[in-house]
Amino acid sequence: MAPMALLFERAERQRPHIPHEVVDLDHHDHYSDTHRIKGLSDGVFAIAMTLLSISLLEHLPERALSLGELRADLLSPLIVYAMTFIILGSYWVGHAIQFHYVVRSDRPLMVRTVVFLLFVGLVPISTLYLGKFVDDPIAIAIYAANLMLCGVGLFGTLLYATKDPKMLHAVFDRRIFRGASVSFVVGPVLYAVALVASFVDVRAALGLCIAVPILTFFPNPFWGRAWQWVVGRPERAE
Amino acid sequence: MAPMALLFERAERQRPHIPHEVVDLDHHDHYSDTHRIKGLSDGVFAIAMTLLSISLLEHLPERALSLGELRADLLSPLIVYAMTFIILGSYWVGHAIQFHYVVRSDRPLMVRTVVFLLFVGLVPISTLYLGKFVDDPIAIAIYAANLMLCGVGLFGTLLYATKDPKMLHAVFDRRIFRGASVSFVVGPVLYAVALVASFVDVRAALGLCIAVPILTFFPNPFWGRAWQWVVGRPERAE
Amino acid sequence: MAPMALLFERAERQRPHIPHEVVDLDHHDHYSDTHRIKGLSDGVFAIAMTLLSISLLEHLPERALSLGELRADLLSPLIVYAMTFIILGSYWVGHAIQFHYVVRSDRPLMVRTVVFLLFVGLVPISTLYLGKFVDDPIAIAIYAANLMLCGVGLFGTLLYATKDPKMLHAVFDRRIFRGASVSFVVGPVLYAVALVASFVDVRAALGLCIAVPILTFFPNPFWGRAWQWVVGRPERAE
Amino acid sequence: MAPMALLFERAERQRPHIPHEVVDLDHHDHYSDTHRIKGLSDGVFAIAMTLLSISLLEHLPERALSLGELRADLLSPLIVYAMTFIILGSYWVGHAIQFHYVVRSDRPLMVRTVVFLLFVGLVPISTLYLGKFVDDPIAIAIYAANLMLCGVGLFGTLLYATKDPKMLHAVFDRRIFRGASVSFVVGPVLYAVALVASFVDVRAALGLCIAVPILTFFPNPFWGRAWQWVVGRPERAE
Repeated sequence: MAPMALLFERAERQRPHIPHEVVDLDHHDHYSDTHRIKGLSDGVFAIAMTLLSISLLEHLPERALSLGELRADLLSPLIVYAMTFIILGSYWVGHAIQFHYVVRSDRPLMVRTVVFLLFVGLVPISTLYLGKFVDDPIAIAIYAANLMLCGVGLFGTLLYATKDPKMLHAVFDRRIFRGASVSFVVGPVLYAVALVASFVDVRAALGLCIAVPILTFFPNPFWGRAWQWVVGRPERAE
Repeated sequence: MAPMALLFERAERQRPHIPHEVVDLDHHDHYSDTHRIKGLSDGVFAIAMTLLSISLLEHLPERALSLGELRADLLSPLIVYAMTFIILGSYWVGHAIQFHYVVRSDRPLMVRTVVFLLFVGLVPISTLYLGKFVDDPIAIAIYAANLMLCGVGLFGTLLYATKDPKMLHAVFDRRIFRGASVSFVVGPVLYAVALVASFVDVRAALGLCIAVPILTFFPNPFWGRAWQWVVGRPERAE
Repeated sequence: MAPMALLFERAERQRPHIPHEVVDLDHHDHYSDTHRIKGLSDGVFAIAMTLLSISLLEHLPERALSLGELRADLLSPLIVYAMTFIILGSYWVGHAIQFHYVVRSDRPLMVRTVVFLLFVGLVPISTLYLGKFVDDPIAIAIYAANLMLCGVGLFGTLLYATKDPKMLHAVFDRRIFRGASVSFVVGPVLYAVALVASFVDVRAALGLCIAVPILTFFPNPFWGRAWQWVVGRPERAE
Repeated sequence: MAPMALLFERAERQRPHIPHEVVDLDHHDHYSDTHRIKGLSDGVFAIAMTLLSISLLEHLPERALSLGELRADLLSPLIVYAMTFIILGSYWVGHAIQFHYVVRSDRPLMVRTVVFLLFVGLVPISTLYLGKFVDDPIAIAIYAANLMLCGVGLFGTLLYATKDPKMLHAVFDRRIFRGASVSFVVGPVLYAVALVASFVDVRAALGLCIAVPILTFFPNPFWGRAWQWVVGRPERAE
């Protein structure tokens, strides 16, 4: 007999309304809706995005400055702020579109979401570090690595969720799967390039970090064609 | 053949339940509900509003003060706090009313929402700066510019969302469109005036910033008549 | 002709799908559901409650302390933290129960909610001040005044929302109205007493602040009878 | 006659649409859905998890560091960050699964939730303290005690919610009850062991704290068998 069984039998006697065993595979497997995952993710994104501004707080002067001084002091942290906000925003958009098609969740998907958010929660810190030492190769490497890990974590939730037909919306097809995969992979790959580049040319690495959100977040004709070239088309069913 | 096609074919073989192509225009176009936009926006607003109080934190004394000292030290940051909270609150009300009528979203609307929230996320910082240097014209100019950009960003989401009939609730009519547009435009215009005024008369610019929420947030008879005069009436269909 | 009419006519020509006027009184009056109010309120409460811990951050030592030193340094801020968390929690419970019965919202209700949250957002700061100067009468007075204003703000949303039958759930009756009113009023009244008491006896005022959540948040037999005595019973319909 | 009755009669005359008494036991008993509990909990978890990174902020250097220096300075706070994020994440998963089965709430359940969140809100502070003094037995003891209290608080909400059949989803059976109970109890018990161990061997206590999330959060074969052994099986109904 199991060690805690006696305790449980007592608790169960006090709760006679709990049935012995309900045969309902979906619930036993802990399938549930995705509201909690969306709620926690929206919360972490909202806080991480708003906390980005602490990287500006660092640079607030002790006395009122002239416009020239403000530009000298605040321009580069402001660019880092806007760039990171847009990058986090594009991960949020990716997450929102993914969970438009992923309609049910289970425990492992929640675990993967927590791991993904663990990397998102680090972004304000690596942004702060980059904002302080914008010319330092290691600062850029840390920043690029962090954003890369966010993308990898998000891709991990997609790979897991798409394995189980019960979790997917009926309209989720291969075209959407390819599109989502590429948009989750392309960022991390470019950040990995920036990570390597940071040890060769600081400015090029930083430029690449800025280019990623501009290329992928805002629509542009170049992107559409590149997409088609990279992704290909799923073969049609005969 | 596209470079990533081989990888995709492998991933797709492991996921045979994903159909080749589902013909469902709405989903392919990534129309989804607006829950995520509302969730992220509520989060960013809640954090930005609560973080406003850090502008008071700066002024907390090292020793317990008398009432007179507290008034001297904390009155102007407290007014700045309340004023900014009400202004952010009025943008939140505007956003809530807009997304009462905008019932579906797509990727570009999410992108525009992120850009709008980028400006909202800066408000605690520019408020902190204004709270520190309440007599400095540049501090007021930065503050007014930030609030102006919030209004412009919110108006941008309205202009985009109203272009697509699929996104709108059936009861959204021209009267509501005019009302929402004016309430989103009038703030930015007044903040632009305050921005210019800050270089002429610091007190007048600050007074204007305070007047905006008092005029627009709380109902008053003057406002109703001015509204009618500015907006006009949409011509009735014959 | 109104000054902005020309601009509007252009925007409306580009959006021919927007009808001229839809007759639907509910929507024209901007009645909407209460999700946004709940979302923003949950957010502000969650942040304000979690930020309370910054009042402990202040007291974190520079070196590892012994248990005795920790108790001397952290006990009183820890009590202040727990007390304020419970108080904010009880306002949150009150808000949740109120919006269980208030099922629709309009613009003025949103405005009142923002004003209520403005006071909630100040609580971490006045808690921090009290945590620093726990023996100072003015610190207690500020703290009590802030909590009193939270209660008054919450009561204001109840008074407004109950005036309009369209906003109320069908089961909202006089018994619930009396119950909610008293629970929203009793806190502010006791805090007003604490506010006055703080200038007479610091310890008594602080004790009263601690007593309020213990009396009202956790169920106890005394409270039930006092309730009956204060509230009375609504006369029954014949 | 009760002292406030006159005031109430006036308020009620102004609100003649509020019925005298509606007989609807569910609502009178303040049963409501669990959205607010989920919303506040997601918010507090999101903030507490994201604020964990302030324990890294403390260690940010004044000048750009080499990789070796960064590792020396940031490795142990980074491990503490990741460990605590995963632990909070596993409490969040437990909470999400619990409220998948608990479908209605009342006032006492909200009160218990606030008490649970009170402990969650302290985690960033005790993590910060542990990150600063990672070799100090008292720091580990405080940390373990805080996590233990989180588990106890969460278990308290489960014990309360399962007592009332009206609050439970129909598929909640004894197997799920045993599973949830064990997963909520096993953490606190191990943290209690770590709490005691911290006064004997600092490294062992810290190792145990790290082992808990690794053992319980990520799936592994050992865990499945241990689970079966500890929990036993509820007897089947004949």
